[in-house]
Amino acid sequence: MARMDVIPDILAQRYASAPMRRIWSPRGKIRMEREYWIAVLKAQLDLGLSIDEKAIAAYEKAIDEIDLGAIEERERVTRHDVKARIEAFNESAGAQNIHQGMTSRDLTENVEQLQLYRSCRLLFRKGLALLHRFREQALAYEELVITARTHNVAAQPTTFGRRLAMYGEELLRALRNMEHLLATYPARGLKGAVGTQLDQWTLFEKDSARVRELETRVLQHLGLPGQWKAVGQVYPRSLDAEVLGHFVQVAAAPTSFARTLRLMAGHELASEGFAKGQVGSSAMPHKMNARSCERINGFTTLLKGYHSMAQNLAGDQWNEGDVSCSVVRRVLLPDASFALDGLLETGLTVLKQMEVYPAVIARENAHYFPFLGTTTLLMEAVRAGTGRETAHEAIKEHALAAVKDLRSGRTSRNDLAERLAGDERLGLSRETIEQVLQSGEALLGNAREQVRTFAAESEDLLKAYPDAAAYEPAAIL
Amino acid sequence: MARMDVIPDILAQRYASAPMRRIWSPRGKIRMEREYWIAVLKAQLDLGLSIDEKAIAAYEKAIDEIDLGAIEERERVTRHDVKARIEAFNESAGAQNIHQGMTSRDLTENVEQLQLYRSCRLLFRKGLALLHRFREQALAYEELVITARTHNVAAQPTTFGRRLAMYGEELLRALRNMEHLLATYPARGLKGAVGTQLDQWTLFEKDSARVRELETRVLQHLGLPGQWKAVGQVYPRSLDAEVLGHFVQVAAAPTSFARTLRLMAGHELASEGFAKGQVGSSAMPHKMNARSCERINGFTTLLKGYHSMAQNLAGDQWNEGDVSCSVVRRVLLPDASFALDGLLETGLTVLKQMEVYPAVIARENAHYFPFLGTTTLLMEAVRAGTGRETAHEAIKEHALAAVKDLRSGRTSRNDLAERLAGDERLGLSRETIEQVLQSGEALLGNAREQVRTFAAESEDLLKAYPDAAAYEPAAIL
Amino acid sequence: MARMDVIPDILAQRYASAPMRRIWSPRGKIRMEREYWIAVLKAQLDLGLSIDEKAIAAYEKAIDEIDLGAIEERERVTRHDVKARIEAFNESAGAQNIHQGMTSRDLTENVEQLQLYRSCRLLFRKGLALLHRFREQALAYEELVITARTHNVAAQPTTFGRRLAMYGEELLRALRNMEHLLATYPARGLKGAVGTQLDQWTLFEKDSARVRELETRVLQHLGLPGQWKAVGQVYPRSLDAEVLGHFVQVAAAPTSFARTLRLMAGHELASEGFAKGQVGSSAMPHKMNARSCERINGFTTLLKGYHSMAQNLAGDQWNEGDVSCSVVRRVLLPDASFALDGLLETGLTVLKQMEVYPAVIARENAHYFPFLGTTTLLMEAVRAGTGRETAHEAIKEHALAAVKDLRSGRTSRNDLAERLAGDERLGLSRETIEQVLQSGEALLGNAREQVRTFAAESEDLLKAYPDAAAYEPAAIL
Amino acid sequence: MARMDVIPDILAQRYASAPMRRIWSPRGKIRMEREYWIAVLKAQLDLGLSIDEKAIAAYEKAIDEIDLGAIEERERVTRHDVKARIEAFNESAGAQNIHQGMTSRDLTENVEQLQLYRSCRLLFRKGLALLHRFREQALAYEELVITARTHNVAAQPTTFGRRLAMYGEELLRALRNMEHLLATYPARGLKGAVGTQLDQWTLFEKDSARVRELETRVLQHLGLPGQWKAVGQVYPRSLDAEVLGHFVQVAAAPTSFARTLRLMAGHELASEGFAKGQVGSSAMPHKMNARSCERINGFTTLLKGYHSMAQNLAGDQWNEGDVSCSVVRRVLLPDASFALDGLLETGLTVLKQMEVYPAVIARENAHYFPFLGTTTLLMEAVRAGTGRETAHEAIKEHALAAVKDLRSGRTSRNDLAERLAGDERLGLSRETIEQVLQSGEALLGNAREQVRTFAAESEDLLKAYPDAAAYEPAAIL
Repeated sequence: MARMDVIPDILAQRYASAPMRRIWSPRGKIRMEREYWIAVLKAQLDLGLSIDEKAIAAYEKAIDEIDLGAIEERERVTRHDVKARIEAFNESAGAQNIHQGMTSRDLTENVEQLQLYRSCRLLFRKGLALLHRFREQALAYEELVITARTHNVAAQPTTFGRRLAMYGEELLRALRNMEHLLATYPARGLKGAVGTQLDQWTLFEKDSARVRELETRVLQHLGLPGQWKAVGQVYPRSLDAEVLGHFVQVAAAPTSFARTLRLMAGHELASEGFAKGQVGSSAMPHKMNARSCERINGFTTLLKGYHSMAQNLAGDQWNEGDVSCSVVRRVLLPDASFALDGLLETGLTVLKQMEVYPAVIARENAHYFPFLGTTTLLMEAVRAGTGRETAHEAIKEHALAAVKDLRSGRTSRNDLAERLAGDERLGLSRETIEQVLQSGEALLGNAREQVRTFAAESEDLLKAYPDAAAYEPAAIL
Repeated sequence: MARMDVIPDILAQRYASAPMRRIWSPRGKIRMEREYWIAVLKAQLDLGLSIDEKAIAAYEKAIDEIDLGAIEERERVTRHDVKARIEAFNESAGAQNIHQGMTSRDLTENVEQLQLYRSCRLLFRKGLALLHRFREQALAYEELVITARTHNVAAQPTTFGRRLAMYGEELLRALRNMEHLLATYPARGLKGAVGTQLDQWTLFEKDSARVRELETRVLQHLGLPGQWKAVGQVYPRSLDAEVLGHFVQVAAAPTSFARTLRLMAGHELASEGFAKGQVGSSAMPHKMNARSCERINGFTTLLKGYHSMAQNLAGDQWNEGDVSCSVVRRVLLPDASFALDGLLETGLTVLKQMEVYPAVIARENAHYFPFLGTTTLLMEAVRAGTGRETAHEAIKEHALAAVKDLRSGRTSRNDLAERLAGDERLGLSRETIEQVLQSGEALLGNAREQVRTFAAESEDLLKAYPDAAAYEPAAIL
Repeated sequence: MARMDVIPDILAQRYASAPMRRIWSPRGKIRMEREYWIAVLKAQLDLGLSIDEKAIAAYEKAIDEIDLGAIEERERVTRHDVKARIEAFNESAGAQNIHQGMTSRDLTENVEQLQLYRSCRLLFRKGLALLHRFREQALAYEELVITARTHNVAAQPTTFGRRLAMYGEELLRALRNMEHLLATYPARGLKGAVGTQLDQWTLFEKDSARVRELETRVLQHLGLPGQWKAVGQVYPRSLDAEVLGHFVQVAAAPTSFARTLRLMAGHELASEGFAKGQVGSSAMPHKMNARSCERINGFTTLLKGYHSMAQNLAGDQWNEGDVSCSVVRRVLLPDASFALDGLLETGLTVLKQMEVYPAVIARENAHYFPFLGTTTLLMEAVRAGTGRETAHEAIKEHALAAVKDLRSGRTSRNDLAERLAGDERLGLSRETIEQVLQSGEALLGNAREQVRTFAAESEDLLKAYPDAAAYEPAAIL
Repeated sequence: MARMDVIPDILAQRYASAPMRRIWSPRGKIRMEREYWIAVLKAQLDLGLSIDEKAIAAYEKAIDEIDLGAIEERERVTRHDVKARIEAFNESAGAQNIHQGMTSRDLTENVEQLQLYRSCRLLFRKGLALLHRFREQALAYEELVITARTHNVAAQPTTFGRRLAMYGEELLRALRNMEHLLATYPARGLKGAVGTQLDQWTLFEKDSARVRELETRVLQHLGLPGQWKAVGQVYPRSLDAEVLGHFVQVAAAPTSFARTLRLMAGHELASEGFAKGQVGSSAMPHKMNARSCERINGFTTLLKGYHSMAQNLAGDQWNEGDVSCSVVRRVLLPDASFALDGLLETGLTVLKQMEVYPAVIARENAHYFPFLGTTTLLMEAVRAGTGRETAHEAIKEHALAAVKDLRSGRTSRNDLAERLAGDERLGLSRETIEQVLQSGEALLGNAREQVRTFAAESEDLLKAYPDAAAYEPAAIL
């Protein structure tokens, strides 16, 4: 297919960052494979196999002679992708030493794991940057009282910082889990066609110790933290599902946050903000659409789909393995990485640019606080000597009447405070009532303390990766 | 991003056919959009709007001046993809007439639907070609007796043609359903920002009749069979899920067939065959891996994942619609189309190239038929006057002993016939027993008749699309 | 397990209707099986097999002697569920004639299909009742102008009836599709162990015609409209996925509607209403939570999960079939039926009880219409002779200023009309401006006509099932 | 609904173990709730609230007076499940002290978490028992040479123990991960209606320290290891998805194993064995169906579906939370627990009862080893002085010819050894050739060493839970 007609990977092209694209670029992958082959060659030489050192030098020199078109051409003839890449590298180097004692999977499994692991590391660091921003904004808005909602209906006051801490804490758990993954992720290693290392073992004249040492050195080259010991042709695909599970979990908190910001934008309490120079719909200047938040929600739908693909590969291994997973993993590993990368970039941008409208928030609070404070008023009335049942009856009566009048249009202002003050049954002065109902302060519970707890706990994680927090997202579409 | 570094859509590049790639190519899509805009313009002119005919001519002349890089550049400034494409076309034509009274979704929804509908039509026709091959092969192997298995264990005889008819019939239902989809698929049409057609209605001075006529003409241009009448900003996403459901259903039969061919290959009863010039693993010439069948199974895993994405968009609409589906649909509609296209191409190739090994099949039959015929033998014994319980006891005793000896290695040949012939309790001659046990003929039931029924029923569908059956798949990787 | 400790199926117990529970009750299923066995017996007798008519009478007499505990006990011994049920029925009848020439799947596949088909029919009729209510409410609220939203932000006016028509139309398509399913759903039939009908064919002395006739009669007993001709041990599981796909599609429209009603409740524009005697949270009398709508959304999450199970069975058949689907289908077929039943019951209740608050809606309209009408005002200004660019500039300037003042708290009332009237650049009188901006009428486009189109199209379907529309939901929890 | 007509939860009734049923039984849950309420009451009393100690004693006395029917009746009136359960307990105790300062979620979230956590602990221990059996069987079959397959085609030798170690190692990782979950699982705690602890904070006169202490004591009662600090009305649903992810991961290894045992049963190399007294199909005594293995595969399909439900709740939170997850979690938490419980019970039974047929395995090895050893033979020939290309050509020629003759039926015995011995080009004696080709020993690579490595690594985990390994599965259906 002519290069002009290429259909780009839309996630890579529109949404992923340059570092993530580099990990998964066809050229980048071939470079990784070649480095890997050379690492195997050097280790084989060190451990006593007879290998021409000049050949190694020739491979090192040819490492960047990568002609994707020519390799594709070879594959169309041999119908074997790895073979095509071996031949291309051999031809460039004028040697035939690489891939000795190896099967295709000794190459591809490990290099793909390396790509995925590097993606995880990049995503983990962006996740930390996002956690940092949740923390910063939670602290910045620690005192801004808003109307918390459950069932999408006003319930009790909270602060906007407290709401952000809620998402932040969910993200914190996801990142702690991902940290655990990064510390334990096992490479498949050099296991041969069915996992028994037969070919390397034969090459090394049945010397198991040298085969183990070879594998250790090659894994050191890769830099992966763990190692499977008894895999078959392929590593268990439940590992891919595990990784993708972390992707979805990291996505969950920004996704709920984005959904909530879409809701808040519908009430004009906040908006996701605009980039410099960006305007809303030209025809409708009032419309500040939460497009980026919607996109975050979209990325998560993609991630869940990719995760379901990975799940469907888990537990589906026949014998020592087959390649019914091949086309699936070719798609899902990069595309899921791009999707989470795009989500985190977008999330970082939203948390950076979002705008909050305290005046609108105050209007909403004024509307709802009379209702939200009734539980507390009840306690005050009882403390002041009114019978509990009497007080409850009076409050309920007035609250329902106030709701009814607001909904029917008889009034457009919540006058519950006046109604309650005017009812002798309750025995509370207008001052007392207004103090409770309008301050919000009295109704915040531990909200602010909880923000500071979250800030401290996230700081514990962040300080272990001191440069991650400062990451600035690239401009998004 | 430099064109050199582009990360291609792997499904498009490696697996999809050229016609499918054309439907979804960035350039092809922009061409479709421009044709659509011109169709709207012409209809608006015909229906009385004041539009400069020279401008239309200028647009028609400029239709192929498509500079993807420049459009992308514009989008990075405006952050609005449709606006960037409007400006680019306007600039090429030196006019500003397109998109009048339209919102972005008046363009994109319809053009995306057209892409998807054309994909469906292409896939339906390939599905017919696949049905044709199932039919041909079912007839070709109508008489080849094989050992049918349930629970992966030999159960009763059937014929290989009958087994193929089973998959063929499943495909037939899927195609009948897809035919129904193709006959009813509704376009969103020109509905404006929230679905009420406000802007066209205002343009046409509140003349509902002309707005209806405009929409009718535009939909005729598209060629879609149906039309939504009361949609919002977007058409209901349950329609995408419906389409993807058809994709998975069309995939199901070839997928079960591919899985079964992998099983048969494990018993060397059949193989998926090789392309001319292709060899198996170079290191292991005996290995004729069912790679293409595995790939078919992989495509289906992808399709199920894409379908789950589409399902997750269904029922998730807020008010008159938002774009939390945008990034999801950008990925899933083309990628699912590519995946099913690749699956059908691969399936066609497998059904064309597969090899069946009657000698190995005969060995398997000889091994199992003595067991498989015991039910029939029981009936024969009863007919010959033996008591049912006596006969049953004798048969069971010998069958279990034969199994045991085969499994323990005491014998490697199934001698159940001799054992039964030697037992007076049964009262059947060796000739009778062998006739029943070894022919297979006596044990086929209606297998062959069922093949012919399937052939006739699939012919009913195929003859309505006379040129579809002849489709030859392109070479696959 | 003692009956006291039984863990009930939560979907059946809390949410499903009594008729749906009857379809799937253990006792009901056994009754269906027995009716089926008797139907087979009678057909076998009619077609010439030697069967004792007294035995048939004995079975008919014993049909309701169903002791679930005793059957379970038998199964724990035989470890074969069908065998346990055969023995129990035989013992009650004092005969041994049923199940002749049949395998377990000749019984279970068909009876399970019958259960599923009856569920589909029940659900289809409830879907019609729901469509009827969408239609009624769309007509009732055809004129009630509301602020349509895209991206959850005010976009253009529409009417509440028009919004309901949007969901109604989506449901209409789903029901049309389900009607197609009900007209074509194929039974597996009496196909024997591997699909070849060997045992009936042997019983009927290789007389294919009588075997065909037997199957026809048995399927007539079941009342299913179609028939597989070449299945294996089991019917293709893609058929279950197809059915479940219809379930999700039927659920999609009420699910989007429920989500939107949750959004509207958050703005106090509407509520799902309360049953007589029901109150909101006792502690918070103002809270009228959209619990039923949330539950509808929850049912859909369940349905998508059950659908994904069904999808994962499709294409997973080995050879002529196995039972790796058994435990899955035991769960998903009833539970998905219960979930959709519960969803439709809940949806019917919500559409019946929902309350709409025109006064609050009017307040929202007043707040937004000045913005929403700017596009129309622009056209008016141009028509009145103002330059387009001048007019656009003036409108945008004032709109952005008005938004800013509202968000910053400088004002709490949208005064855009005054601002525009005061700007000479625009050249429109205050009367003209207010007329456009406040009426809504002028901005409805074809909204009301579209409601009537939907009403007519849904009536077309409803009148084919005259008694379905009147269905009244049972009380829900 | 009359108790007689109850539709049982099929997973609980047929497949789950008694201890798992106890965790999720309606009665058991109400008991847990009551214990929890009493724990809160006692802590409130200790921390200074004025609570009548006699009331506490009355609650303790009434704790087992649980009338499910009466509670259900109350709920049908109040339409509030928690309220119904409060009233029932109050009435039994003749007091009104429980639930003070609590919202429903302060009760239900924590008790459901406790149920789920206890399920996890139970499942983890069964997972260990399964790991123990994989380890035992891997060691028992460490030396049994079998033909390893990739692409379901013979590839290289391995041992059956090595194959089991492969699945065992996958399970080991899953259990290590679940151990991490069990050590960090966070309870929601007593957070009040929107998470700010307002009501307890008001009860304790704004004394944050006592509120913290109250929560700490209540969580100690529960015994959960962690605690959310800044949740809303509900804990983040990504936590449920995380738990379900572990369920699927634990299932993956036994699922691949079960699939492979189904394949082996198809070749009669092994069977899942039978319980004492169990027979195969009565009509077909040879059929030893891998029903339990198929069921394991089915459980995993269920688990993936439940997991997808849990995933779809993650990231779907609006504001401080709603209950659109309620019906979903009511179903998926118990049913997923039952499904994994059933899977592990079944897996334990299979690993305990499975039978392996060395004689059949040896026949398969004899058939394939000549092919499998060709790579090694090539090395031997080169070592003996033959040119590499010459040797490769000769081997390939004979291997392909041998395959062809076997498939065409010209021979039924693999005579590759003779063919190679007869070719002078190769220069290897018949003895050398046979030694390599038939022993298997020479072709095992590190297989046995890898088994021992797995045994040691799994022992590391097992010894930390000394009594878990000994668990014996209950009899399965």
